[in-house]
Amino acid sequence: MRAIFDQELSQIGEDLLHMATLVATAIRDASQALATADLQLAEQVIEADLALDELERALDERCVILLARQQPVATDLRVVVSGLRISASIERMGDLARHVAQVARLRYPEKVLPESIRPLFDEFAVAAEKVAVDLVELLQSHDLNKAAQVEKDDDILDELHRQSFTSTLGPDWDGNVSQTVDVTLLGRFYERFGDHAVSVANRITYLVTGDLGDGEPNNL
Amino acid sequence: MRAIFDQELSQIGEDLLHMATLVATAIRDASQALATADLQLAEQVIEADLALDELERALDERCVILLARQQPVATDLRVVVSGLRISASIERMGDLARHVAQVARLRYPEKVLPESIRPLFDEFAVAAEKVAVDLVELLQSHDLNKAAQVEKDDDILDELHRQSFTSTLGPDWDGNVSQTVDVTLLGRFYERFGDHAVSVANRITYLVTGDLGDGEPNNL
Repeated sequence: MRAIFDQELSQIGEDLLHMATLVATAIRDASQALATADLQLAEQVIEADLALDELERALDERCVILLARQQPVATDLRVVVSGLRISASIERMGDLARHVAQVARLRYPEKVLPESIRPLFDEFAVAAEKVAVDLVELLQSHDLNKAAQVEKDDDILDELHRQSFTSTLGPDWDGNVSQTVDVTLLGRFYERFGDHAVSVANRITYLVTGDLGDGEPNNL
Repeated sequence: MRAIFDQELSQIGEDLLHMATLVATAIRDASQALATADLQLAEQVIEADLALDELERALDERCVILLARQQPVATDLRVVVSGLRISASIERMGDLARHVAQVARLRYPEKVLPESIRPLFDEFAVAAEKVAVDLVELLQSHDLNKAAQVEKDDDILDELHRQSFTSTLGPDWDGNVSQTVDVTLLGRFYERFGDHAVSVANRITYLVTGDLGDGEPNNL
């Protein structure tokens, strides 16, 4: 029984890693589709999100079956329940990458962003890809330095989000209303993308150390 | 054992109901604070969200302890795991009500919205309170007509969200950039509020019928 259980736990870890890898690709491609008005790439991201949703469903099913059949307790139980929560966060990151791609598709063949704010969104793109890649490495290694790095990446996304408000509300803003709306939504999507990564990082930290960072449920 | 388990399951149901009731109050008050630039009411909503977060933590802890001690299977297991998921959605609805209140607080003593779009946000307020109240009644009764009603309420919120874009992007829009940003964010907050209510309704429907509406994991 224990060997099967360990194998199934390890499979959950691999599935989460697979999902996070797909999300890292999705946010990179979505940012590029946004920057270059690449319709085909935008549609590719939107399409790929379906696979991610399906992976979440399959993983959740496996977690519940595992709870029912193996009746884990203590750490094992924490791992399985955390698996359920982490998959939900990663799936949501995929949705947010898709939302970015959908804005790019909606405005095609126009580029979404006025020129003045493109450098800021280049920074969003770099920071969001970094948070996703650091999350992949955290899921691979369970190295808590990576969890700390995810937090730092998220701080950058939060700062860029603040700067996006400063830009649109500042005297030099030359975007039209549609661009103001898009910048507001896109900034929010990137910011939430980082929040979910931190939520995953906190859960993994807790699994490793028993200490779940501030503002998170302290039981999983 | 079974009597204790039933009691604990019933406690989970009561806690979820309590959380949903707080959320219905929060969204009503947040909308009113927004409409009337009521700083005190906005701060009350923001403060009250802390209690909701704490309720989620306590409920999650109870669910995990229940999984560990009682090792439920089949329907009982589904109920406990669904409890974990439903509490996360309701907690998130509380966050979104808080976000609405935070926008009201940020712009105080100004009213956030230009006059032309206030009627639309009056409709948002009514629809969002209705989705929350219908969710409370669904949690109380497990009456699937209420689940269908939550879906309909959410359709209205989606339609209002579309109208908010039509307004800001239309020729008659007289808001400044700051108001455009606020309307964009507020519309999104109300729309997501409805999405989470539907997610809860789908999970309850599945617990009652075994059929979880489209687009949702089919295992819980």
